[in-house]
Amino acid sequence: MGINYFNRDDRDLKFVLFEYLEIDKLLTYEAYKDFSTEDFSMIIDEALKVCRDVLGPTMQDGDREGCTYKEGEVKVPESFHQCWKVMAENGWIGNSNNPEFGGQGLPAVVSGLLAELFTGANLAFMTYPGLAVGNGRLIENFGADEDKALFVEKMYTGVWGGTMCLTEPDAGSDVGSVRTKAVPDSGDPRVYKIEGTKQFITCGEQDITENIIHLVLARIEGALEGTKGISLFIVPKIWVNPDGSLGESNDVYCGGIEHKMGIHGSSTCTLNFGENGNCRGILLGEPNSGMAKMFQMMNEARIGCGIQALGLTASAYDTARQYAKERIQGPLFTNRDGGRVPIIQHEDVRRMLMNLKSGTEAMRAMIGKLLYFIDMAQFDPDDNAREQAEQRIELLTPLIKAYPSDFGYLLIRDAIQVLGGVGFCSEFPVEQYARDIKIVSIWEGTSYIQSLDLVGRKIGAKGGSVFRDWVQEIMTFTGDLKEDEDFSADSKLLFKAAQATGEFAMKYMQYFQEGRLSLIPLSSTRFLECFAETAMAHIMLEQGLVAREKLSGVEAGSADGIFYRGKIETVKFFCRNILPNVFARHTSFQQEDTSAIDIPEQAF
Amino acid sequence: MGINYFNRDDRDLKFVLFEYLEIDKLLTYEAYKDFSTEDFSMIIDEALKVCRDVLGPTMQDGDREGCTYKEGEVKVPESFHQCWKVMAENGWIGNSNNPEFGGQGLPAVVSGLLAELFTGANLAFMTYPGLAVGNGRLIENFGADEDKALFVEKMYTGVWGGTMCLTEPDAGSDVGSVRTKAVPDSGDPRVYKIEGTKQFITCGEQDITENIIHLVLARIEGALEGTKGISLFIVPKIWVNPDGSLGESNDVYCGGIEHKMGIHGSSTCTLNFGENGNCRGILLGEPNSGMAKMFQMMNEARIGCGIQALGLTASAYDTARQYAKERIQGPLFTNRDGGRVPIIQHEDVRRMLMNLKSGTEAMRAMIGKLLYFIDMAQFDPDDNAREQAEQRIELLTPLIKAYPSDFGYLLIRDAIQVLGGVGFCSEFPVEQYARDIKIVSIWEGTSYIQSLDLVGRKIGAKGGSVFRDWVQEIMTFTGDLKEDEDFSADSKLLFKAAQATGEFAMKYMQYFQEGRLSLIPLSSTRFLECFAETAMAHIMLEQGLVAREKLSGVEAGSADGIFYRGKIETVKFFCRNILPNVFARHTSFQQEDTSAIDIPEQAF
Repeated sequence: MGINYFNRDDRDLKFVLFEYLEIDKLLTYEAYKDFSTEDFSMIIDEALKVCRDVLGPTMQDGDREGCTYKEGEVKVPESFHQCWKVMAENGWIGNSNNPEFGGQGLPAVVSGLLAELFTGANLAFMTYPGLAVGNGRLIENFGADEDKALFVEKMYTGVWGGTMCLTEPDAGSDVGSVRTKAVPDSGDPRVYKIEGTKQFITCGEQDITENIIHLVLARIEGALEGTKGISLFIVPKIWVNPDGSLGESNDVYCGGIEHKMGIHGSSTCTLNFGENGNCRGILLGEPNSGMAKMFQMMNEARIGCGIQALGLTASAYDTARQYAKERIQGPLFTNRDGGRVPIIQHEDVRRMLMNLKSGTEAMRAMIGKLLYFIDMAQFDPDDNAREQAEQRIELLTPLIKAYPSDFGYLLIRDAIQVLGGVGFCSEFPVEQYARDIKIVSIWEGTSYIQSLDLVGRKIGAKGGSVFRDWVQEIMTFTGDLKEDEDFSADSKLLFKAAQATGEFAMKYMQYFQEGRLSLIPLSSTRFLECFAETAMAHIMLEQGLVAREKLSGVEAGSADGIFYRGKIETVKFFCRNILPNVFARHTSFQQEDTSAIDIPEQAF
Repeated sequence: MGINYFNRDDRDLKFVLFEYLEIDKLLTYEAYKDFSTEDFSMIIDEALKVCRDVLGPTMQDGDREGCTYKEGEVKVPESFHQCWKVMAENGWIGNSNNPEFGGQGLPAVVSGLLAELFTGANLAFMTYPGLAVGNGRLIENFGADEDKALFVEKMYTGVWGGTMCLTEPDAGSDVGSVRTKAVPDSGDPRVYKIEGTKQFITCGEQDITENIIHLVLARIEGALEGTKGISLFIVPKIWVNPDGSLGESNDVYCGGIEHKMGIHGSSTCTLNFGENGNCRGILLGEPNSGMAKMFQMMNEARIGCGIQALGLTASAYDTARQYAKERIQGPLFTNRDGGRVPIIQHEDVRRMLMNLKSGTEAMRAMIGKLLYFIDMAQFDPDDNAREQAEQRIELLTPLIKAYPSDFGYLLIRDAIQVLGGVGFCSEFPVEQYARDIKIVSIWEGTSYIQSLDLVGRKIGAKGGSVFRDWVQEIMTFTGDLKEDEDFSADSKLLFKAAQATGEFAMKYMQYFQEGRLSLIPLSSTRFLECFAETAMAHIMLEQGLVAREKLSGVEAGSADGIFYRGKIETVKFFCRNILPNVFARHTSFQQEDTSAIDIPEQAF
């Protein structure tokens, strides 16, 4: 094993869970009644230990060793086997899943923020358990009883791996074009012959688990073109007999793996199904309902992407702040004749660290809030509360997927810059974080796809009222803070940002009506970013108020006092330095510029 | 050799040189009187050929093979030897240098934009010739006659390599802390014994050239602390006898190389000088004048950094636009029922390509203009013109160093995004561009160091008049365009941006006076970015006017017509989509936020 660089301070995570979101309220839900907040706290401590002792030390060597391919087989980095063993044996893999199938039943908000730690310690490794449980959940939700009995527990407990097989060489973002076909097989009406090639399949082949359960999008012969004719199939790498024993190999062949910018330890495979006509798949649910089902998994995966980006960014921040405390170099700008000081005192280093800190904390709280809504939507006894939570989840999911992936890429750049030349070298992990995070803005639907989901579906939901209510909530919130002694300037900026974000949405309605359609996709990613930054500033200010309240009850110089004071400054930094990006995008939006469309194509 | 992905369309480069800058005016200078614009055009065509045939095909294999270290020796990628041979034999290495020493004497503006091509084809390789000529020029300018005779021609013609040895383990940005020492050697008063360790020395050891001439910053025993006690020494890897023949090895030992995020083919070395007490160096110029001399080279190198960032970004744009023309996927947002189309027609892809195109072209023109000033400053017969050009060079150099390196990193991200999953894979070169470019914001002085140079020295030059004149020039320019039928909106945005940028400078004076010093380094990188974007928007609009004028004289559908129409739209895109970033930074600046300083250090 290599050096561990994972070193998360969990104070902010616990603040989000216990002080900001007050997740003890969840303990009144039937599903969570056997937990206590002390349990959650202990579980976090244990997870941190696993990150430091097991996942963290394998991150760099996983990157250096990478995956290797030979004659259909893939070897993952040697140390990943031990990671899997520890994660499986201690119940971490299915920590949020249904206890009926071997899961630990943790609330989504706890499990999701544990995932920040795990992915922040080793994203490449975490793709393997991540896909196993995502897959298992889909079978749990939509599978026949015999499917559930055969597969689900095996996936939640780390016996088998899983994959999502959507992409094909000619069907990436355009999923509706998949050409993999399914033909009814003689005998069992739920069993089909599968034939086709899938590309960019994460964890498509590996030597960690004895079996891999692929979920494959394919078109039943004669089905409609486009997304309406797509069905979903359970395709085990090795056929599973009705008694649960492994049968024969199922004609799934890995044709090769990709060499990539990052996540070298995660295999990215081309899979050939049924090259010899012997690949069998079990239809999951009704024929032609594949896309809808895949979307359930996709929505979870999209939230997972936000968590991945958060995890890497937070780890980059950790590396940068620790380095900055230790590295001594040059005097301050404000005291040129003073001696050499640790660079954490240098003004610009401090600005970059604050960028990282405030960005990370804002993303963590936004994601935490969404995860809390997931628990509410699932278990709150009040119908209305469940429905409202569901609406917020829908609205926020595209933000959570896209924004942290792009913003995290920028923030990790700052972490490299804090380390200077050392940051460009591979001894420290920041350059790896920069490489690893790039995939997050691409897989599970690019940032642009998310922005179209937001503009095309989400902001119009319930006649636009969900979005309008959100804007209104911020207007009311900022109205109350207008004269606040600490946050007056911040609330004014937030008010203006919410106005600007609201204006985008109004204008989009107008553009739809007037047929000026191209103005929408030309600006939709920027709208998404404005929305995300406004939402985060709101959440940051909410946290600032909590921190101020708590600060009044502790010593300013105590560990808690320092944390709360830090939080208050971090809130200000976010509102005054990151939130104003909204105004640049809004000014740009107001130009209604179509030069990108007007330019002759040959001019590119 | 590998696959060539370099495929620059030189139309914009020629537009900048011949239509925007009208470099035929340079031909009146005595130094350039033997050139014609046709010569320049042919030279560019030849350089493109070298890029496509020689440098381009070695870029990816240089990355994959990297440099290897064994017992003090470094092997560079095998194919780099052939690159060097071609570059040396055809006079490309010293193409801008003094013909008296074997250079080709090209104008800086031509040579600099050739360097865009070369670095865009293979940045890692270009570090070797780049350091050789930079080094040679320093010896040409400051060396004794015997030094010039011994070294300069060998470096301009590619016989020997060179390095700049500044950084030490404890002296990075804080160059004044170097501890390498020089002790007078018995005998020749210009020869010193050198002893010390240098780190991060680019091209510090390699197996391309038979000798390497290091320029080493060291402190003569007893000299002052800080930058005032630093001298510069010529330290050949192998001693050079007075007759030019190679003598004995000079006790310079490479202790190892770094593993890095990018530029794997460029060796980054730790060099131990005088481990055995036998390292000799020749004092270059006066004792204790090392920093000033190194700054001459550094200023050239800083402009070189802008060119490197431009070269990589332009190449990333080339890859993205070509891929987008070939890749077919999904319908348009504005025509959902239409068929699948090449993604270059997709609105968001087009927006990203325009980001890349307008950003690249703005950087190219800004750098071209600076390079033109270099030719003026050196050779214009008019004293006043030379002085003004020199002032503009001083003012713009920090922008050229910092802005393209950071902006290019963002733009290359867009290029990856255009390619989607493929962009994250190593088959196409975009992920390599993303890794290679990151070093540019760090070496030769970080972006923050540049911003301090700008704020601390440059905007105050000549009582602030150089900067004020620049603001005034834009005010006048935009005044003339207020009612322009094409660029009215753009000129209004530019006017506001120039106002905002001017306000930063005014405020800085106020902060200096009021002792509110920390507000300066907290915002200086953002000021630099505002300045750069305002300068580029100005230059883009100037180009837009030229293009419009030229368009009136050609067929709209001709190749030139398409180019000029493309340029006009590109100018609009820049002003309406990139320039507005100034307003976000300005809003942030107006908050006068000190949260990054106010936060307790332990809160990080």
